[in-house]
Amino acid sequence: MDLALSLGRRGLGHVWPNPAVGCVIVQGGRVVGRGWTQPGGRPHAEVVALAQAGAAARGATAYVTLEPCAHHGQTPPCADALVTAGVARVVIALEDPDTRVDGRGIERLRAAGIAVETGLRARAARADQQGFLRRVTLGRPMVTLKLAASLDGRIATATGESQWITGPEARRHVHALRMTHDAVMVGAGTARDDDPSLTVRGLGARRQPVRVVLSRHLDLPEDGVLARTAAEVPLWLVHGDRVPAELREAWTARGAQLFEVPVRRGQLDAPAALAALGAAGLTRVFCEGGGGLAASLLAEGLVDEFVGFTAGLALGAEGRPSLAAMGVDALADAPRLVLVETRAIGADVMHRWRRAD
Amino acid sequence: MDLALSLGRRGLGHVWPNPAVGCVIVQGGRVVGRGWTQPGGRPHAEVVALAQAGAAARGATAYVTLEPCAHHGQTPPCADALVTAGVARVVIALEDPDTRVDGRGIERLRAAGIAVETGLRARAARADQQGFLRRVTLGRPMVTLKLAASLDGRIATATGESQWITGPEARRHVHALRMTHDAVMVGAGTARDDDPSLTVRGLGARRQPVRVVLSRHLDLPEDGVLARTAAEVPLWLVHGDRVPAELREAWTARGAQLFEVPVRRGQLDAPAALAALGAAGLTRVFCEGGGGLAASLLAEGLVDEFVGFTAGLALGAEGRPSLAAMGVDALADAPRLVLVETRAIGADVMHRWRRAD
Repeated sequence: MDLALSLGRRGLGHVWPNPAVGCVIVQGGRVVGRGWTQPGGRPHAEVVALAQAGAAARGATAYVTLEPCAHHGQTPPCADALVTAGVARVVIALEDPDTRVDGRGIERLRAAGIAVETGLRARAARADQQGFLRRVTLGRPMVTLKLAASLDGRIATATGESQWITGPEARRHVHALRMTHDAVMVGAGTARDDDPSLTVRGLGARRQPVRVVLSRHLDLPEDGVLARTAAEVPLWLVHGDRVPAELREAWTARGAQLFEVPVRRGQLDAPAALAALGAAGLTRVFCEGGGGLAASLLAEGLVDEFVGFTAGLALGAEGRPSLAAMGVDALADAPRLVLVETRAIGADVMHRWRRAD
Repeated sequence: MDLALSLGRRGLGHVWPNPAVGCVIVQGGRVVGRGWTQPGGRPHAEVVALAQAGAAARGATAYVTLEPCAHHGQTPPCADALVTAGVARVVIALEDPDTRVDGRGIERLRAAGIAVETGLRARAARADQQGFLRRVTLGRPMVTLKLAASLDGRIATATGESQWITGPEARRHVHALRMTHDAVMVGAGTARDDDPSLTVRGLGARRQPVRVVLSRHLDLPEDGVLARTAAEVPLWLVHGDRVPAELREAWTARGAQLFEVPVRRGQLDAPAALAALGAAGLTRVFCEGGGGLAASLLAEGLVDEFVGFTAGLALGAEGRPSLAAMGVDALADAPRLVLVETRAIGADVMHRWRRAD
């Protein structure tokens, strides 16, 4: 199952709105088939593994990280494929809460006389499937928030200089993290100040994550990198309801996809923005700030994972804060996260946290 | 030598203004004597180890972390003690830059026909002796700066609530760090806001570090914990030149020791304050903030070690910053530190850095 989990993880960021599943087929103590959900979401892991196993699948055990599907979507049901191949036993890490599956995959296998076990390494599978599960159960993608800051939590000097606070190894790690997410998201301020491309670079990525910018007024620079590349790499712009039609049309003409969400207390409503992204199929969103967007995601309890990079320099109180005002008066009201790991990456500290619940 | 280094470290925080030295005596492949500088600075490590070795010291090898002293201070020279004991060979990690020693300990040993080697584990010894070396060469103690902050670098909420941001394990670690320093130092704001005792608690400490408060106007609460305990645990107050005589006398009467230093740009001159502490014998100072003092120490290049604790909560931009304004406009001008280690301590991240030079 550990092999199946690690195969499944290869699909993270490449298979949305589908789950990234791994499958291993074992016959007589030997691995005869390995598969994972392919880029774009099909073929599914089970189909790939069964094809590799061929006749050896008959009487074999299949390890699958998520309950095999039972519905006819863009592919025939994987449960049927396992039955047809003559697999004797299926071990499943996690049952699928998708209402189209929801136990029916297991039922179908059992009805065909296959022995089914569930729950093996369920905790690890749940962590890997977090994005898929959030979307199915809450209608929004999981959110990983990344902040790279100085020792005193500043993301830029008073004059806005921010390149580079962290070193090349940390930046490379960030690109690897982008690659395991369906989308990279920033606020409008960051898009204006840094003129970022938000693409994965230097890692041979064949598929770029969607770039998402939250901009209430849709007032992003028309000559910026994002505008110039909107036709090549998906650019999704989430904006408020008071945006002139010409501006919308200009961005649509450039190739951007627009999402209108309500404005609340002068800001785009963060839960509504994530709901819109979930409805559009995203399961894993990697938010890289700025401080305003990061603060509202944390304050609304929408951050599932937090990845901090701390660099060995001090910028002082004039520097730009990593989080904007949050209205936290008492420590007891502060959003809290649970430490997952910390380690050195190059000259910087990387620390990873997850939501407490 | 590694054993000698680890023995020597036991003295850190307890032997100022002396160096914390370790000594191991080996005879025929067997450790016959172990010693370290005793609390208060004497007896010295060599004398303790030689006493333990007794007659077995004759013809033995002595491993010493710092060049044995050659001058008659409050104890007779250790070089002479090694000669008298008949030691055949002395291995020294680090030569002593103290002008009263400065090679003369080694000369005396060689003159007596003892084989002397130097430089074994010199780097580790130099790190352990950093406080002693800074005082001898720069006239100031080494400074370890500790900051415990939220994920966004805040040390308190907008309303000043700061207890407790980090968990019990991190706080216990801080007490252990206090114990390895000669003094614990804070700014006046922290002394006023937190009313701290600045003592080592819960670790069975037999000797408390000196408590140092930098207060330009000496306007500390007269009914605070520091005032009430000034007679029991040393309290040193560093103040400016405009403090009324009555106030000075009141604090002296309570048992505090006063140090007057110049005021520069509206603040106590940090280099002058450290020079005064060095002149008074301190070799290792543990600074616990607040943001103003921490920022001026960093800006002046006076921080030798930095220990950060990062807790898994977010306080937002209204929270109190861990570092006050530093006047850093360009990233290239920001004070930089080099990562030593990072690890989890309880629910928090501990990261340790050292100065770049």
